[in-house]
Amino acid sequence: MSEPIAIIGGTGALGFGLALRWGRAGVPVVIGSRDAARAAEAVDRVREAVPDAQLEGYENAEAATKAEVVLLTVPFRSQSETLTNLKPVLAPHQLVVDATVPLAAAVSGRATRTLGVWQGSAAQQAQEMVPEGVRVVSALHTVSAATCGDLDHALDEDVLVCGNQREDKERVMGLIDRIDGLRCVDAGRLEMARIAESLTALLISINVRHKAHAGIKITGL
Amino acid sequence: MSEPIAIIGGTGALGFGLALRWGRAGVPVVIGSRDAARAAEAVDRVREAVPDAQLEGYENAEAATKAEVVLLTVPFRSQSETLTNLKPVLAPHQLVVDATVPLAAAVSGRATRTLGVWQGSAAQQAQEMVPEGVRVVSALHTVSAATCGDLDHALDEDVLVCGNQREDKERVMGLIDRIDGLRCVDAGRLEMARIAESLTALLISINVRHKAHAGIKITGL
Repeated sequence: MSEPIAIIGGTGALGFGLALRWGRAGVPVVIGSRDAARAAEAVDRVREAVPDAQLEGYENAEAATKAEVVLLTVPFRSQSETLTNLKPVLAPHQLVVDATVPLAAAVSGRATRTLGVWQGSAAQQAQEMVPEGVRVVSALHTVSAATCGDLDHALDEDVLVCGNQREDKERVMGLIDRIDGLRCVDAGRLEMARIAESLTALLISINVRHKAHAGIKITGL
Repeated sequence: MSEPIAIIGGTGALGFGLALRWGRAGVPVVIGSRDAARAAEAVDRVREAVPDAQLEGYENAEAATKAEVVLLTVPFRSQSETLTNLKPVLAPHQLVVDATVPLAAAVSGRATRTLGVWQGSAAQQAQEMVPEGVRVVSALHTVSAATCGDLDHALDEDVLVCGNQREDKERVMGLIDRIDGLRCVDAGRLEMARIAESLTALLISINVRHKAHAGIKITGL
């Protein structure tokens, strides 16, 4: 038995793909959406693909109360607003896993470029915004939403995990490692998210040139 | 037969490791150093390990005139001074391959952090400094100097190559692909070097945690 995970923005491409993968892996998933009806619809779609998945769907703030580990997979444009909405419901024992990438696309710039975030990274911005005692771990930036959402496609790549507490990272890695074909690599403190997040822009540049859905692996470990 | 490559800073750890690898691959190497005697010494050391390597050693500026492709593997602290010294000898047909990484270690900061370079990246700074008509390609940031310099250690990783001209990148890739175990991946325009360079800091953070000499691979291509 695994602890559940709540996916805020679980109707977006990456969130939905991860819901499918975790659903198949036997991890209970709570899908959050701005609209409870859309969350319920996403639950139905996951069930169609993975009939025995353990799933619930709620509006984002309610979803965030249903699991101790809360994954944020919203576009950077919505990150701040989403965290403001979650602030009243997040409690000190909870972990927020931030997968946000500050692509310049958020302000109609190129998806191969990132915005400078004052705090250093989207994950550090999240850490500043969550209530006292809630800790942020940064992960899952380099997993292609398209690949993740296609269950016929075997995954075979690494996930960089950044955070300031080793036990928080281990808890998040425990959940991510449940997904077949993903291996977690501890990439250091939360400030390293600045680089991990920028990898998405680099992979998008590679994808354009190679007509691919690239991921990364760390060699030599 | 391969065209030769000149390695500016070829007595440093990465430059020397690459000289060994190219020497073994049959690529003629010109080792440059600030001090011609140290360049000659490095030539002797490569010959000890790879007796049939084609090698010459010169002071940096002279070395840069001996090959059309000139690789810069100096610390960021020395990049600007080195390019100023090379400026009078570089000619419009030449390609500069920049492997410089603006680690904060250059100003006694952490090696897991980078400095902001006004032009965007060390490679773009190099492009601004070379004479008109000389083009810069950015590559080889993620290859561990320690691993590269140990010929008993098989390489098995990717090299991200950034540049504005496809034919320039192909020429550089042709040289790098001669080294067993390295695969080149076109990562886009020269501006993507900002992200590729920062990967070194990320790998250093991973190395600290995993007691490793990590590299990267791009999956899904």
